[in-house]
Parts: sequence; structure tokens; C-alpha cells
Amino acid sequence: MLKLSYANCLSDRVGEHGIDPDHLAPGGEAAAAIAAHTKKLASTRGKGWERWRELPFDPMRREHVTGVRNAVERCRGKFENLVVLGIGGSALGNIALQSSLNPPTYNLLDPSKRFGPRVFVVDNVDPAYFGAILEFCKTHGGIQKTLFNVISKSGETAETAAQFMIIRDELRKAIGTNYAQNIVAVTDPAKGTMRQICDREGYTTLPVPDGVGGRFSVLSPVGLFSAAMAGIDIDALLDGAADMDKACSREDITQNPAAMLAYLLVELGETKGKINHVMMPYSNALYLLADWYRQLWAESLGKRVDLQGQTVFAGFTPIKALGTTDQHSQVQLYREGPNDKVLGLVEVESFADHSRGVHGDMTIPSGLGVEAVKYLEGATMSGLLNAEKRATEYALVESRRPNYTIHFPKIDAYHVGQFIALWEITTSYAGLLLNIDAYDQPAVELGKQATFGLMGKKGFENFKSQVDSTLGASTRVISA
Amino acid sequence: MLKLSYANCLSDRVGEHGIDPDHLAPGGEAAAAIAAHTKKLASTRGKGWERWRELPFDPMRREHVTGVRNAVERCRGKFENLVVLGIGGSALGNIALQSSLNPPTYNLLDPSKRFGPRVFVVDNVDPAYFGAILEFCKTHGGIQKTLFNVISKSGETAETAAQFMIIRDELRKAIGTNYAQNIVAVTDPAKGTMRQICDREGYTTLPVPDGVGGRFSVLSPVGLFSAAMAGIDIDALLDGAADMDKACSREDITQNPAAMLAYLLVELGETKGKINHVMMPYSNALYLLADWYRQLWAESLGKRVDLQGQTVFAGFTPIKALGTTDQHSQVQLYREGPNDKVLGLVEVESFADHSRGVHGDMTIPSGLGVEAVKYLEGATMSGLLNAEKRATEYALVESRRPNYTIHFPKIDAYHVGQFIALWEITTSYAGLLLNIDAYDQPAVELGKQATFGLMGKKGFENFKSQVDSTLGASTRVISA
Repeated sequence: MLKLSYANCLSDRVGEHGIDPDHLAPGGEAAAAIAAHTKKLASTRGKGWERWRELPFDPMRREHVTGVRNAVERCRGKFENLVVLGIGGSALGNIALQSSLNPPTYNLLDPSKRFGPRVFVVDNVDPAYFGAILEFCKTHGGIQKTLFNVISKSGETAETAAQFMIIRDELRKAIGTNYAQNIVAVTDPAKGTMRQICDREGYTTLPVPDGVGGRFSVLSPVGLFSAAMAGIDIDALLDGAADMDKACSREDITQNPAAMLAYLLVELGETKGKINHVMMPYSNALYLLADWYRQLWAESLGKRVDLQGQTVFAGFTPIKALGTTDQHSQVQLYREGPNDKVLGLVEVESFADHSRGVHGDMTIPSGLGVEAVKYLEGATMSGLLNAEKRATEYALVESRRPNYTIHFPKIDAYHVGQFIALWEITTSYAGLLLNIDAYDQPAVELGKQATFGLMGKKGFENFKSQVDSTLGASTRVISA
Repeated sequence: MLKLSYANCLSDRVGEHGIDPDHLAPGGEAAAAIAAHTKKLASTRGKGWERWRELPFDPMRREHVTGVRNAVERCRGKFENLVVLGIGGSALGNIALQSSLNPPTYNLLDPSKRFGPRVFVVDNVDPAYFGAILEFCKTHGGIQKTLFNVISKSGETAETAAQFMIIRDELRKAIGTNYAQNIVAVTDPAKGTMRQICDREGYTTLPVPDGVGGRFSVLSPVGLFSAAMAGIDIDALLDGAADMDKACSREDITQNPAAMLAYLLVELGETKGKINHVMMPYSNALYLLADWYRQLWAESLGKRVDLQGQTVFAGFTPIKALGTTDQHSQVQLYREGPNDKVLGLVEVESFADHSRGVHGDMTIPSGLGVEAVKYLEGATMSGLLNAEKRATEYALVESRRPNYTIHFPKIDAYHVGQFIALWEITTSYAGLLLNIDAYDQPAVELGKQATFGLMGKKGFENFKSQVDSTLGASTRVISA
């Protein structure tokens, strides 16, 4: 099981920059507030925009896992490359699962050492990036041996639509009418542009379930299909999430890791000015989980709220960092720059596991015979990694910088599933504590409409003139 | 030449959240302050910790380029893999150069399509990461065909020392006494632990020049050797830096991009509370340049200062983001969260260049026949990418969020060199404006000493007991 250590967020460790431990005691202000929110979440789970809470449980789970396994079965052995086309919530979870649960060299390995095709998640419309990956696939197996997993609920997200139009055209030219077998679409089961295309052209489809928003969708077919294609144990992933859900349903805040995290982060943000939230795994594999967290935390909580005529800009800025690497880049700032952060460290207790091609621990050999580094001889690399983590934790406390640690016993699908559920439920608590809607994203609309205007979409002409007049000709340009 | 557009940082665009344009006018407060700092920098360049300013110019340039080319020549054709061992300033520049100037699929390509060996920059002591890469090298060419570029001025950085001790041992076992030919060390030319080892064992060495700190070292052999090994045009890189240096020596702030950037960022930070600085390239290739910038900005400016008995925690938090990807993750927060950021957008004007295996632009084909996405037909992918950038810029201005744009005419070594010099010189201006020493990093020491203590290094025993007593046994742990 994951563990959360939060002592370094409290005032007995970091003085005035921490939370008074009495708030957490039975009858304290946190305990009471959280108990009410836990009751509310128990009553709303599985309804409206909180359907994601039920993804790790039957009947949704059974339906999704069955559908995903059938689709994977149909594709098995037929493809050398899997290219996921999606953006935001349709990509970040997929990237996080691949990078946390497959070796960093996965795509470089010989087919016999992999658990499925090479995996590329292309979440941008940069032609140099997308083009290079398409080019690679064409010359390594060919586009005939490349499966495209297009993920879009509506089919109208500009980036995914553009990518899809390009690969559909390429597939048709290369394969002809049978090209549909190279596409698995994850989309709305009933309506929308992509649904129409799928029905017309006969793609295999998997559902983006109703009431599951993009950033809460990784444990649905959105994330599960590409994971299963690459041999990730999706049942263990869902087991982990289900177990974490139970832990995060406990009424006592001191036993409920999501409630505690949400309370501490919101309280440190609102009363102590710690409005930047760093996530810093001491593990390369877990680093991109921080990118997935960034979307969840930023898009759910970064909201304008009108409170009794006053406009408040709520939310916290999530920042990803990597230990020990960023000790040599960001820790100077984290200790001596503005005291406006909570540091979330992530520690892996054991790197011993050699399963699934992931390399285990290493011992630093003797023999160099140099006094200055003799202390390293015989130590394990993970011993050094975790000593540096502990040393950084200590240095942060010495500078009165609040921080917490999430402990992974080891990196596997079960614990990654726990981590995902932990943060999703923490986000739902934080929404209640901030009194905001964690499930909308109104501020994204204007940029989409302006893009439509600039790209000449009918009905959006006004936005083009609006953009041109706002950004107009400017002389404020310096040429180097 | 790169261009800087800064109109959106001014009050006539973003109201009270921007800078009064009068400050920038001749005789305004910015113009005067900057003119004095420009004079000062002209007098300190090439001296003390500002020797990095001379890296793009002879005689340092000639010496370094000659040394690097000779070392590359000796290694040419002999190796299938190049593994860079370093951390912080000994890695971030190398990563940025590889990712910005080679295709994203570089390591996956067949040898005939590459410009040198595969390149791995291993900047951590995570055994699952380092182990996987070593394992890959052993089975693809073998450790005999793997060149290790170890970068450490002192040789005592724990992470690099640990990596080095492991690979030295592996090389000796595999190759025997000739193993030195698989190592190119970049280290102090005269003193230190690594220097002694190199002299004793006969490695090829290149200098970390005196007076060039890690985070300002990318244009020295620290960054140039691995770049040249992978076919990057290091002369073009240095030409770009040299030309940018000249532009950033202009006395008029409205003609000097580094002075303008530094003034705007410091002023927006200090007087408008914009203490988070986001760098958001609309280009996957340029994304990791933002990681290099993160170190430069955080470690140089994040400083505790004692001003007349008052302790001030100075500095700004650098954040990396990627366009368009993070429009679907962070822009909700950037528009409606706390107005505490300056957004630095980076735009590439032309993706037409097919040189060096980098894929050029792509056109979105017609034929799907779906009204909702018909507006995309016939557009280029870069047209969509840059329309989204412009739409986001507009949306940010509408929310009164200050932002600027750095324009790349195209991505090549010359312009990447310009970008590097621009930010290095901007950092030196920002140090002067903040009245802090941009070249030290005192807050990093405590964590290093505590690591020594925890790892059992002689003389640091006290740190272990200090850590144990500070972090002591705690009951503030929740198990999921």
C-alpha cells in the first residue's frame, strides 16, 4: 500500500509555515470539515461528473476490461507500432502509464523483449514531431503494421482531428478499403462527430463513458487500451485504484490520505500562501505521473470565482520536478526563493523488482581507490537515491518549507493505480474545500473559438477580427 | 535572428498587470537603470564568474572547438552508443541540444540515418533508469562499443561519481586495461579528484574552463562534445551565441533583447507579483530547452538576501510548459488561476526545413467529408500550431495575463545558440537588477552534507544524527 507522510507540513516541524496539528485532532476544524465532505462524496459518487469514482468497480469495470481485452486480442501480433492520437486527458494518462510501468528503453528493445508493439503517444500538432514518428513507423514495419488509437470524445478537438485526418488519408492510400482495421477509436458511445465517422467507416470502438471528464478518464478505455496493448496489467491497476478508493472513503481525516492531502494543500495555500505545489518523484519512471497530476490539479482547481461581488482567482500552480536531478537545478530556489510552495516528494522503497524488463538495483563497486568517493563503495544506487531524498527533506525542513512524502513500496501497476485514485479523490475533496466546480474548464473556450476564427471556421469570423485588433500591429519587437 | 515581442507585457495591453510603457522610453526609469548595468557588464565580461561570456569568441572558442573536434575525430566510427554521465549543468544543456536539434526518433533510427552513435544523457542515480540504459548498450553494440562522456568539474558530485564507478568497473571487466579509450572526461584542466583519476588512467579529457559555472557551461566542451558526436553543427551554435551577445550589448534597452527581458521579468515580479515565469515553446523540439532555462533561472536568482536586517527570499519560479499540449492542461489555470505569472511563449515561424532528418511541415488532407472539421482541410499542421499559439496569446491578454513571445525563424543550431546566449545574458542582467549574486548556490550545500552523513562519509557523522533528530520517528503517516 502507498503511504503518506505529512509530519513536515505541520507547525511543529516548519513553524509558522505549517499547519497547527490541533486542527487535525478529533474535534479540530479539519476533522469536522472533512467528515462533512466525506459524507457528501459518498452520496455523489457514481453520479453526474463523479461517475469516474466507479471506474475501478463493477459493472463499469467489467464492461471496460472485457471490451479492452477483446480489442487487444483482435490486434495481437498484427502490429509493430501503436500510435496514440489524443491530447490533454486523452494523452497524459497514457504517457504516465507507459513511462511508469515499462522500461525507459521500451521502444528501443527488440520485439522479443517487449510486451507488445512500440508505443508513441503523440499529443501535439508539431509537424516535426508528428512527422518524424509517422516517418519512423512507415520505415519500421510500415503503416500497414501501425495501429492508431484515436481518442476523442467529440472528434472535434482540433489537434486530434488534424492528426486523424492525416493518418486516415495515409492509411487509405497504403491499404485501401480495409484500412479501418488499423484504427481503434475511443469515443462517445452514442453521439458526436467521431461516433458518426466510426459508424460510417467500421472502426473498432471503445467508450469514453458518460460523465467521465478527460482528466479523470485514465482508468477507462481512454488509458486502458494502450496500456493493455503494451502488456501492462490493467486488472492490477484497477485493483490498486479500488483499494485506494476504500482508504479514501474513511471518515477520520487522519486515516484518509486523500482527505488529508486535500486539507493540507488547500489550507497551506489559502492561509500560508503556499500556492505552488511541486511534485518531485525520486524515480525517473514516476516523473511523468507528475505531468498527469499537473492537468488534474491545474484544470480542476484553477478557477475564477465570484464571491459576494468579489472576483477571486483560485487554484494552485502544479510544478513537476525530478529527484535527484532537480536538486542540481531547483532546490536552491526551493530553499531560498519565495516560501510559496508545498513540496510533494515521492519515494520508492524498493527497486529490487526485475519483473517486466525493468532493471533492478545496482551496487557501486569498490576498486577506484579514491578517498573522496570511498564512502560510496558498496552502497546501492537506490540507497544513494533515497539518502539524497531524505537529505533534501531535511534541508527543506531546516528552511521551513512544508513538504510531504508519498511512499511507493515498489513500482508496479497496483501502486500506480493507487496513486492515480489518490490524486483524483484528493482533487474532488479540494474542489469541495475551495467551494468550486472541479469538473468544468470554462477558460479554455476562448482560445478554442479564437483558433476556429484564425483557421477560418464558419461562424467564427468575428473572433479573427477580435484577435487581430487586440494583438494588432506592434512596434514592441526587438530583433537580435 | 530571433525576435522578442513584448507588447503584451505592457499596461496598454494588460492594464494594471503590465508595465507602464513610459518606463521604457528614452529617459524613463528602465532606460537609465539598464544603461548603467550594460556598462557594468561590458567591464566584467570575461572576468571572474563572467568568463562564460567569452565562450563563443576566440581564443576560448578556438581552443574548445579544436579540442572537441579532435576528440570526436578519435572516436568517429568506433562507437554505437554515447552515454553522457552528468547532472544539473553537466546534463541539461546536453539534453537540450540533442532534443532541439536531432529528430525525436534519433535513437530509434538505423545507423545510416543518424549522424553519430545513439545518445543517452543519464542525469540521475535511479537504478531502474541507469540500469536499463546500460543493459540496452550491452546488448546493442556491447559495452565495448559504448563511449562514456563523464562530466564533472570536481569528480566528487555524488551522482556522477556513483555512475562513473559503476561504468569504470564494467568497462574494466569487459575490455581490460584498454578501457580508457571508452571514456572522454570533461573536467577541471588542472586540479580535483576527476583530474587525478584522468591523469592516472589516461582518459581523453576536455576542459571545464575556469570561471565557467555549471549552468553557464553548455557552450563549453561540457555541451559541445556530445553535440558534435551527434553531428550537431557546433560552429553554427557558437556563431548564434556570438551574434546574440552583440545584440545584448546594445545600450538602448529597446534594442537589447536580454536587457528588455530581464527588466520586464524582474519588474513584473517585484512590482506586479508575477513571480512565476512560464516558458512555453510551441514546439516539441524546443520543450527541453525550457528545462535548461529552469536551472539557469532558479539557481541563479533564487537567493536569500539580507537587506538592512530584513531577510528577503528573492527569485522567480520557472515553469516549463508545451504548446499546444498544455492548452489542454494548464491554460485554464493560466487564465483563471492566480494572476502571478509571466508567460513566455516560443514560436517557430517555419517548419519547412527537412535538413538533418528533421521532418518538415504537413498538410491536412481533405476527403473526410465531415462538416465540423472541414475548416482544417488544406491547412498545414504548423498553421494550426501557430494559430493556436496566437489564439492563446489573445486569450491571455483578454484575461490581463502578461506574456511575451520569442520567435525562431526556424529551428537550427544557429538559432538555438542565440536562444542560449539570450537567456544567459538575461540572467546576468536580472542578477544586477535584483542586486544578488547570480553565480553562487549556497542553499544546495546542506543537502549535500546531509547526504554525506547518511551515506557514512567520514567527517559528516554529525549530519546523520542531525537528520535523524529533525525528521525523527513520526506518527504522521497514513497507510492506504
